[in-house]
Amino acid sequence: MKTRVIINIFLFAVIHMVAKADNGHDLWLRKTIANPVKVVGTGKSQKMAIAMEELNSRWLGEADATVTLTISPDKRIKPDGYRLTANNVQATTESGILYGVYELLRLQQTKQHVGTLISNPSYQYRLLNHWDNLDGSVERGYAGRSIFWKGKGNTAVTDDDRSRWAGYARACASIGINGSVLNNVNASPEVLSAASLKRVKAIADVLRPYGIRTFLSVNFSSPKLLGGLKTSDPLDPSVARWWAEKIKEIYTLVPDFGGFVVKANSEGQPGPQDFGRTHAEGANMLADALKSRGGIVMWRAFVYSSTDKDRARQAYNEFMPLDGKFHDNVIIQVKNGPIDFQPREPFSPLFGAMKRTSVMNELQITQEYLGHSKQLVFLSTMWEECLKSDTYQEGRGSTVARCTNGSIFGNKYTAIAGVANTGLDSNWTGHDFAQANWYAFGRLAWNDTLSSAQIADEWLRLTFGSNDQNEITAGKDELWNTEFLKPVKEMMLSSRETAVNYSMPLGLHHIFAANHHYGPGPWYAPTGVRPDWTPPYYHQADTIGIGFNRTSSGSKAVSQYHQPLASQFEDLNACPEIYLLWFHHLPWSYKMRSGRTLWDELCFRYDRGVQQVREYQKIWDKSRDYIDQERFLRVQSKLKQQARDAQVWKDGCLLYFQQFSRRPIPYELERPVYDLGLLESVNPLYIIPSADGEKEIIPNHY
Amino acid sequence: MKTRVIINIFLFAVIHMVAKADNGHDLWLRKTIANPVKVVGTGKSQKMAIAMEELNSRWLGEADATVTLTISPDKRIKPDGYRLTANNVQATTESGILYGVYELLRLQQTKQHVGTLISNPSYQYRLLNHWDNLDGSVERGYAGRSIFWKGKGNTAVTDDDRSRWAGYARACASIGINGSVLNNVNASPEVLSAASLKRVKAIADVLRPYGIRTFLSVNFSSPKLLGGLKTSDPLDPSVARWWAEKIKEIYTLVPDFGGFVVKANSEGQPGPQDFGRTHAEGANMLADALKSRGGIVMWRAFVYSSTDKDRARQAYNEFMPLDGKFHDNVIIQVKNGPIDFQPREPFSPLFGAMKRTSVMNELQITQEYLGHSKQLVFLSTMWEECLKSDTYQEGRGSTVARCTNGSIFGNKYTAIAGVANTGLDSNWTGHDFAQANWYAFGRLAWNDTLSSAQIADEWLRLTFGSNDQNEITAGKDELWNTEFLKPVKEMMLSSRETAVNYSMPLGLHHIFAANHHYGPGPWYAPTGVRPDWTPPYYHQADTIGIGFNRTSSGSKAVSQYHQPLASQFEDLNACPEIYLLWFHHLPWSYKMRSGRTLWDELCFRYDRGVQQVREYQKIWDKSRDYIDQERFLRVQSKLKQQARDAQVWKDGCLLYFQQFSRRPIPYELERPVYDLGLLESVNPLYIIPSADGEKEIIPNHY
Repeated sequence: MKTRVIINIFLFAVIHMVAKADNGHDLWLRKTIANPVKVVGTGKSQKMAIAMEELNSRWLGEADATVTLTISPDKRIKPDGYRLTANNVQATTESGILYGVYELLRLQQTKQHVGTLISNPSYQYRLLNHWDNLDGSVERGYAGRSIFWKGKGNTAVTDDDRSRWAGYARACASIGINGSVLNNVNASPEVLSAASLKRVKAIADVLRPYGIRTFLSVNFSSPKLLGGLKTSDPLDPSVARWWAEKIKEIYTLVPDFGGFVVKANSEGQPGPQDFGRTHAEGANMLADALKSRGGIVMWRAFVYSSTDKDRARQAYNEFMPLDGKFHDNVIIQVKNGPIDFQPREPFSPLFGAMKRTSVMNELQITQEYLGHSKQLVFLSTMWEECLKSDTYQEGRGSTVARCTNGSIFGNKYTAIAGVANTGLDSNWTGHDFAQANWYAFGRLAWNDTLSSAQIADEWLRLTFGSNDQNEITAGKDELWNTEFLKPVKEMMLSSRETAVNYSMPLGLHHIFAANHHYGPGPWYAPTGVRPDWTPPYYHQADTIGIGFNRTSSGSKAVSQYHQPLASQFEDLNACPEIYLLWFHHLPWSYKMRSGRTLWDELCFRYDRGVQQVREYQKIWDKSRDYIDQERFLRVQSKLKQQARDAQVWKDGCLLYFQQFSRRPIPYELERPVYDLGLLESVNPLYIIPSADGEKEIIPNHY
Repeated sequence: MKTRVIINIFLFAVIHMVAKADNGHDLWLRKTIANPVKVVGTGKSQKMAIAMEELNSRWLGEADATVTLTISPDKRIKPDGYRLTANNVQATTESGILYGVYELLRLQQTKQHVGTLISNPSYQYRLLNHWDNLDGSVERGYAGRSIFWKGKGNTAVTDDDRSRWAGYARACASIGINGSVLNNVNASPEVLSAASLKRVKAIADVLRPYGIRTFLSVNFSSPKLLGGLKTSDPLDPSVARWWAEKIKEIYTLVPDFGGFVVKANSEGQPGPQDFGRTHAEGANMLADALKSRGGIVMWRAFVYSSTDKDRARQAYNEFMPLDGKFHDNVIIQVKNGPIDFQPREPFSPLFGAMKRTSVMNELQITQEYLGHSKQLVFLSTMWEECLKSDTYQEGRGSTVARCTNGSIFGNKYTAIAGVANTGLDSNWTGHDFAQANWYAFGRLAWNDTLSSAQIADEWLRLTFGSNDQNEITAGKDELWNTEFLKPVKEMMLSSRETAVNYSMPLGLHHIFAANHHYGPGPWYAPTGVRPDWTPPYYHQADTIGIGFNRTSSGSKAVSQYHQPLASQFEDLNACPEIYLLWFHHLPWSYKMRSGRTLWDELCFRYDRGVQQVREYQKIWDKSRDYIDQERFLRVQSKLKQQARDAQVWKDGCLLYFQQFSRRPIPYELERPVYDLGLLESVNPLYIIPSADGEKEIIPNHY
């Protein structure tokens, strides 16, 4: 008996030690045992050297093949695009060669056939917005401190920094990202100081060989705050002069500098309205100063001063009158939804509506409202939902994607931005599956018609698949596909809907705990806090029912959408149930399409979210033999927390809303395990000191 | 639409407000609207007055009936017993009348037919042991501070005290309890000081009319510690003299004083062995001093100095050689199991084995190891399991009950004790369902052949049933029976097995977190702590398997049981699986009767425990319209905590044991939601200040 047991133990140990520990640092670009290859290229630039090095170190095509890299004019190929065959990459620019090489290697690694293909990016500017502060903190960052900034006293650029920036740039380049905004949109004027710009130059020098241009967020009051001027009025000549000088200084250091992102007159940030000027006057002044250098201004439309009782209407109200007033190197940067990166929002009505202005989509890769780096939520499906939403602005098929990628309006500049989720964590993103969101953003920015299923498939193969004959899955591809790839991909693809279910189903939105935006806080409404910063403003729950009436009998936000959407959202029989409580305030007894009452349906959705996370735990636990233990255990632990926190969401929301609905949770459903009072008592913040002396928000230690 | 909703809300409010709020203070003796009755009784003592008052205030029999209370000799009726008809209570003592009256009223209230019946108690002494300290704290008390003691500076007896003691005595009398040990077995010598004895007298005076005698726990070193003698050696004449004087003092104050409980040479308490004397010599000295007064000594067998490598053997080893050496007014008080009030233990092998000594059973009503006052665990089934266990000591049918109630050995004194769960909480016991354990103990002490099902049925009807035409269930008896009584009774009856499942199934024992004994602590084993105070001593988990080998190849504890039990416990094919790991160390791959491996079975049991608690939540939630909201909400909240804590138990134990088993938790089971490290890090104690300034142990705030 003993012998058999010991043998079992031995086998167990063997199985679990074969797959090498992987800390996730190599992302989707893991080392492989490459076949020998001969690369013939034109040019000896850094970019070309990188392309050749990638081919040499990761070639999985025919052994001893010869690959040619050709830069030659071709009308079918746009600047960053490429033409690919199994042994040739053709492009009109070195960047195009680089992107083509990465695509070729990706096709090999994901075991796809390489035919002849031409690929051009959907958007010219494919940018990450880093909300990194100069002090090294990252606003809404959940993966450690900034990879770019370390704080005032710590400006020396180390080899470690350069190596990390290069790794970052390589990852970006491999998925087609071509620009980085290095600092927070809540911008410190100090970013334009000589000391900061020196660091910007160092970063830009490392990013450049990977085809990545550098951008900065600027504080609109910089002329006054940094420059010592009396005003920052954009129509004051001294202000324009100050900006021109500053821009000259920047371009001296960073000749290919990309431009500015500006958050103006939003959430306390300064802006042109402080001086009685319009957003257009502010943006144009900066755009004019950048124009001769080839720089652009990305002017954010995320504004919601209380000019309207419905925050969802405010950006539209403020920007639509300015349509056509912006100079051509200004792009209005619009968050995907009209409120703020919620788990689900309808698209912003500005998309397609601003017909004489370039508009770009701002997506949030960092999971501010979707579980931070604690929860597995694959955001690609959410972005796909937005990009493929039909605005009807120029007839059927006027998707958000086509309204912003130039194919409808022929804009001079097209762009898309994602708020980055990177930090100093060894795996860059905290949650190993958050890497997939970085990856997905890049892939969609390159090709906004890609399906999330394809992106997930690619990412899983690249990130967890076997590239090594010595690895456990060698010779077991079929098993790996059925036992790992398929279920884990399904988990990823349903994960955003799951998060919606356990946090805010049926169109509910912004019922988060204050400040940290992690756990539930539908009850949060202290006196003195502006109403649109409190969840009751959004859910409007009362003894009658729940939801925000944005129909013609309410805020009339539906009218900001083009027909037939306005009527569809208005009409209860036509309004998609996923947006129901976004547009309607409905009685608890309202009959849903399922036949259930609204209250019961709400209960079922929350419960379903919890059950789904438990199902993910099973899927993941079954995957343990197919991947390395280091990442297996890390993700396993995070899924546990997600299961706990999904329960907190369900209990907190249902028990809170039950005070209004006064109806029982359907008895076939699992009961709450928390008392409402307990959950409310840890709101809004539960802070404990973390190991490194910083305060960490632990809203989930109930 | 609005109108209908408002009507619904109104109806909802009405339904939930009809059943009056009930804080639980009246226990199973709730006020009723009585029918008029004429009581004819002999004697005008306090006891008779109480009997008459109970009849007058709670008579539910025929209106205007005449009830006679008759004290007359009858050989069939023992001192506390009675003979009952619908309109007559006959007894040989006033106490018997009182018990008969309570039984008559109980039968009426539970809607049972009252025929002619004679009832005599199974045990002469039916005692509560209060582990109350003189400072007002209660060892292993979870229902507030002591109802008897308030601390040194606070000895005045108030009306409030007297009223509470009377309420306590009435509750005890109503279920046949006839003695209270007022202080902790870890006894302060101060309990015998003049000041304390004054308070004892005040208490005794309140308890007496309810037929309750007063007892004290004494510290064996009292002669030295309190009396100032040089020794407490029981064979020293000055010591015996000191005790005789003290006993005289006590009886002067409390003429019907019952006697002493002694915890000697156990867990650091002093005892005769300190002077080279035996337990018998110590006990007999005290017994002799009490004898002329009619007092007894209850000498605890809870000893486990490390005379044997197996703690389960030690009490037997130490006491068996003394069988026959104790004087006849000594009773050896033996905990139901050989270790310590675990969720499940086989019975102590001392039962039936000490044939020439009176032995009594000590049960624990307070839920030290069964969820404190936070978890719903009906202990009656556990006690029933013990009482009905066959020791085979005098042939088949030598149950633990019959070995202690005199029917086999004809002992002069028979007794049973329960460690009380009362405190200052307004409902006495913290958890409303913990009242059922107090009730069940009394009922079993009166009649040790009662079934737990009957006890639960009685208790539920008395505690939650309708006694009032105005209450919600009026006219709805049938519905109340099927929708409330039946499911809730089933919940109670399975609740102990549920607790065993989620904490220590299959014979596991004592794997609690240190000190507080609430949550799991199978990992707890700091250096310097004696091994038998650490869980690994008990579970013996290693890479081979798990369990304590008490067979002939192990500690040989099986040999302390009478045949055929010794062979049955030894034989894997005969050993009940509920005791499997109590007696055997088995490989993880051991095949269980279910066909599962031991590891898988363990996983299934833990999981089942969690699922069962969730099921209880459903049962309870469905009961909300059948009872008052105050108790409904309180129990609902506790069940939530129980569900959370069952999960902590499951996760903590399975993840800890998995380190040894190295086997996956069967994938059909819900996955753990905690990391082992997190659970280990909050062990052994997590203390936060509670609202009233006291420190409260909150092991469950993970």
